Amino acid sequence: MFPDIDTPAVLVDLAIAEANIDRFQHYCDAHGIACRPHIKTHKLPFLARRQVAAGAVGITCQKVSEAEAMVAGRDIASVLLTYNIVGAAKLARLRALADRVALSVVADSRTVVEGLSRQFADASSPLTVLVECDTGAHRCGVATPEAARDLAAVIAAAPGLRFGGLMTYPPAGGVAGVQDWMSRAKTLCAAAGLPVEIITSGGAPDMWHAHDAPIVNEYRSGTYIYNDRSLVARGVCQWADCALTVLATVVSVPDANRAIIDAGTKVLTSDLLGLTGHGHVLDRPDLRIDQLSEEHGRLVSDGDIGLAVGDRVRIVPNHACVVSNMVDTVTLVRGAQVEGVAPVAARGQVR
Amino acid sequence: MFPDIDTPAVLVDLAIAEANIDRFQHYCDAHGIACRPHIKTHKLPFLARRQVAAGAVGITCQKVSEAEAMVAGRDIASVLLTYNIVGAAKLARLRALADRVALSVVADSRTVVEGLSRQFADASSPLTVLVECDTGAHRCGVATPEAARDLAAVIAAAPGLRFGGLMTYPPAGGVAGVQDWMSRAKTLCAAAGLPVEIITSGGAPDMWHAHDAPIVNEYRSGTYIYNDRSLVARGVCQWADCALTVLATVVSVPDANRAIIDAGTKVLTSDLLGLTGHGHVLDRPDLRIDQLSEEHGRLVSDGDIGLAVGDRVRIVPNHACVVSNMVDTVTLVRGAQVEGVAPVAARGQVR
Repeated sequence: MFPDIDTPAVLVDLAIAEANIDRFQHYCDAHGIACRPHIKTHKLPFLARRQVAAGAVGITCQKVSEAEAMVAGRDIASVLLTYNIVGAAKLARLRALADRVALSVVADSRTVVEGLSRQFADASSPLTVLVECDTGAHRCGVATPEAARDLAAVIAAAPGLRFGGLMTYPPAGGVAGVQDWMSRAKTLCAAAGLPVEIITSGGAPDMWHAHDAPIVNEYRSGTYIYNDRSLVARGVCQWADCALTVLATVVSVPDANRAIIDAGTKVLTSDLLGLTGHGHVLDRPDLRIDQLSEEHGRLVSDGDIGLAVGDRVRIVPNHACVVSNMVDTVTLVRGAQVEGVAPVAARGQVR
Repeated sequence: MFPDIDTPAVLVDLAIAEANIDRFQHYCDAHGIACRPHIKTHKLPFLARRQVAAGAVGITCQKVSEAEAMVAGRDIASVLLTYNIVGAAKLARLRALADRVALSVVADSRTVVEGLSRQFADASSPLTVLVECDTGAHRCGVATPEAARDLAAVIAAAPGLRFGGLMTYPPAGGVAGVQDWMSRAKTLCAAAGLPVEIITSGGAPDMWHAHDAPIVNEYRSGTYIYNDRSLVARGVCQWADCALTVLATVVSVPDANRAIIDAGTKVLTSDLLGLTGHGHVLDRPDLRIDQLSEEHGRLVSDGDIGLAVGDRVRIVPNHACVVSNMVDTVTLVRGAQVEGVAPVAARGQVR
C-alpha cells in the first residue's frame, strides 16, 4: 500500500474530492442555492480554485490569514470571512485584503461593527458586513431576530460599511430552526428598510437538507470535499466518498489483539465529534482505534489483530478538517496512483 | 495584557521554564538519577540546550525528524529515540543521525531489531538499542521480563547493534510496578550474561516519585518544563509553575454568562487527558471553557461573565506538549516583559 510514501502521511484522493465537489455543486445548482465552500477542510488554494471552477460563488474562510493564503494565487474573486475581526493588527490586514478581493465579513456586536467602521471609513468602497445570528448553536451570534435587525441598522449607518445580509452556523439538525429564525429576521429587516441580500447557512451534517430552509440562498460547507468518519456515522456519505485518509505503519504488535501504528494525535488529532474511537481503518471494520497518544495509535480487535510490524493501514479520521491542519504537506493520489505532494498553504493560520 | 501581541498566541515564560528545569534537575541530582528530558513539550533547540546546560545527560525524542531538528544546532551530544524505527526511509535517516550524535533507540520486537541491524551492520560503531518494556501502559513494549531478556539477547547478537538497557513508559501511578518489573528483568538479563546499563522510565505525572523505583537510573520527563492543567489537577505543580499559556482575545459576548475567544482546537487542541473542559483561565477560576471548535473557544460562568469584546485572557491548556505542536512560533516572555519570538523548530515533525 503506497510503499514509496513514508508514514504517517495524509493522502488526498483527488478523484473522490472532485466527485464530492461536483456532487454538492450539482445539489446547490438544482435548488438555486449559492455554494460557498469553507476552505478550512483542505487549506489548499488549488482545491479552492477547483471549487470555484465547478460553480462556487466564492469561498469561506475563518481567519484573515487563511484568506490571505487563499487569494495569494489567482481565480478566487470573493471571500466571506465568518468571524468577528477584532484588534488593530487584524483590521489593518482585513483592509489590505479588501483591496484584492470582493470581501464580506460578519459581526455580532456594536463593538465589532465600530472597529470595522473605523478601519474602513475612508475606504474607496464600503466593506460588506453580515450579521451573525445564533440559531441554536450558542456560539457566536445575536440572540434574536430583533437584535439582528437592530445590528443591521447599525451596520447600514456606519461609515465605510454596507449591510449584506444574515449569516448563521446552526447546530446539526437545525435546518427548521434556521428557516423560522431567518424568516422572522428578514421580515423585521425589510420592515426597517434594510433589504437582506444574502442569507447564508452552513454545516456539512445537514448539507443535503439545505433546501429544507428555502429562506437560505447561500450554503457554506467545508467537510463535503473530503468527508470523514463523523459524516459517515451521520449517514451523510459512504466510506468510498472519503477523500482524505491517513496512511500509517504498524510499528508494534505486542499482543495477539493489539497493534500500534505511527499515527497519533499529531496527525489524527483528539477530535471525537461525539464518536467512540479515533478513526476507521479501511477494509478492517473489525479494528478499533481505542487510544491515541501523540505519536502512537492503538488498534485493538476482539479476535486476532492480523497485522505484523511493517504492515500499513489507511484510516478515515473522525474529522478531516483538523487533520489537514496537522501536516505541512499532503500526498495527492487517484486510486493507487500517486500524483504528487502539495504544501498545505493555509495550515496553522491561527491569526 | 500584552497589547502588542496579536492573538491567539502561545506565550512561554522563560523565568518559569528555567525554574522548572532547574527544580527537576536538582531532584534528579539529589537522587542520583540521570535526567533525559523529552523535547516533545517545547520542540525548541535553545531550551534543549538549556536543559543540557542544567545537567541533563541528553535528550529524548520520539521521531527521527524531531532529533534531526534538535541536533541541527550545537551542544546536544546524546539522543534517545523512544520509538520503534520501521521502514527504509527512517532507517537511512537514523543511520545518518548516528554519525552526528551519540544515539540510542528502542525496540520491542525481532522485526524492529532486524531492521536496525541490517541498517547498521557495516557501521563503524554499533547502535545502542534498549528493549522497550510494557510495565502496564499497554502501548508498545515486550510483555514480560522474560521476553525482555530474550530480545536483549537478540540485540546483543545482532550485527551493528549493542544492547543498552531497558526502557519503559509506565502508566501514571505505575512506579511500584516499574520497580518490580525492571528488577526481575535486570536479574534475568544478568543471569544471561547481558548487563543492563540503563533502565530508563518516564512520565511527568510521577516525576517527583521517580526515586520510589530505585532500579531506574534515568528518567524522561517532557511536560515538567512547562507544566499544564493536567499536572496541576494531579497535584504535580501549581498554576504559578505553568510556563506555557495561550493568550486569547474575546471576540463575542453574546449572552450574560457566555463569551467567545479566538482560541479553539487549532491552538488548544481537543486533548482532555481525563479532564472536564479545555483549559484554565488564569485569574478567573469562575470561568469554564466548556466547548471548542476549530477557531472558537466558549467561556461560560454561573454568574455574569464579566468580559467585553476585545478583552484578553490567558489560558493554561490541558496539555502543553500538543499546543507547542500547533504553532509556527511562540512568544518568549519573562513576567510582563516580552523577550522575542522563537520558531518552533520541531513542530509538525510527524515522520
